[in-house]
Amino acid sequence: MTDRLSIVVVEPDRDRAELIAASLDHAGDYNIHIVAESSRVARTIAEYNPDVVLIDVASPSRDALEELALASGPMDRPVAMFVDQSDDGLTKAAIEAGLSAYVVNGLRADRLKPVLDAAITRFHMFQSMRKELEATKKALEERKLIDRAKGILMKARGLDEDAAYALLRKTAMDQGRKVVDVAQALVTTAGLLS
Amino acid sequence: MTDRLSIVVVEPDRDRAELIAASLDHAGDYNIHIVAESSRVARTIAEYNPDVVLIDVASPSRDALEELALASGPMDRPVAMFVDQSDDGLTKAAIEAGLSAYVVNGLRADRLKPVLDAAITRFHMFQSMRKELEATKKALEERKLIDRAKGILMKARGLDEDAAYALLRKTAMDQGRKVVDVAQALVTTAGLLS
Repeated sequence: MTDRLSIVVVEPDRDRAELIAASLDHAGDYNIHIVAESSRVARTIAEYNPDVVLIDVASPSRDALEELALASGPMDRPVAMFVDQSDDGLTKAAIEAGLSAYVVNGLRADRLKPVLDAAITRFHMFQSMRKELEATKKALEERKLIDRAKGILMKARGLDEDAAYALLRKTAMDQGRKVVDVAQALVTTAGLLS
Repeated sequence: MTDRLSIVVVEPDRDRAELIAASLDHAGDYNIHIVAESSRVARTIAEYNPDVVLIDVASPSRDALEELALASGPMDRPVAMFVDQSDDGLTKAAIEAGLSAYVVNGLRADRLKPVLDAAITRFHMFQSMRKELEATKKALEERKLIDRAKGILMKARGLDEDAAYALLRKTAMDQGRKVVDVAQALVTTAGLLS
């Protein structure tokens, strides 16, 4: 049953919670946990580490919306929020808080699954772009460090670029460390000594 | 009236087109162009260059959905699509095609504006991340080129890193070119001569 999605449903209204649970049971094979109190959202999510979070709140204030969004961890998993009413500013705040879906006045049994599917797909697209951005930024930072270290070696030892890199690499291998860590040590030390 | 959003509405059904236009007129200050035929979508969008595109199709095939998504340019502007029916695979395809909103069975007058607002905000978030990723990738590539060029100069002229960069920079200024272009020329030439 590895395909079974676990969902934390945040729903203060007991009747609506039952409706949502019944709809999800009907729509697919979900593992559902219901939370009624906003104050318990973060704890419940930490406990169950769900695949997706579905929040239904009638008419949140901006603070309540942002608190719920934060508690549900929208960078770590898809979070879909349904509200009955929303003004323009609130919609913007919800999306900017990282919610993967924000649905105004549209909680209906037959729409739960498409909204969850869209939220999950959108989350993964965003996540993969975010990871690519992080990796590219890290590569750029490491490159800067390694190039500074190469420059130091080229000047101090009269090496060409390839030989300087080979020396960094050999030192890293000999010491069981990463090239970037050796480069960092060299740059730090050169700064101290010069 | 620079705040007036222009919208291209793609709607084959004339009654629904009127409903949508009336709802939008009611909801805000929009400049609306309606297209009835899918085949004219790309041309209409090229002509009006709208701020946002709203597509309503009853039950698109996967091919029709992807063609509409492509024609509406979801990387250049927010595109919101409403469909009456959708299966799981279609929802995923719609999001992956870059649609900023994909709403199943939820076209209602009072939901148009929140969906458009969400689509616009989401598009700008995605767009800004995409631009940051492009800029970071470009910085990394330029860094690689400039560092190769510096390495060539350091070896050929016995310069240290800073002097090599200063020489690149001076050459670029003297020639009214970018440092990265001078670096590219140097790397290309060194490859030819070695």
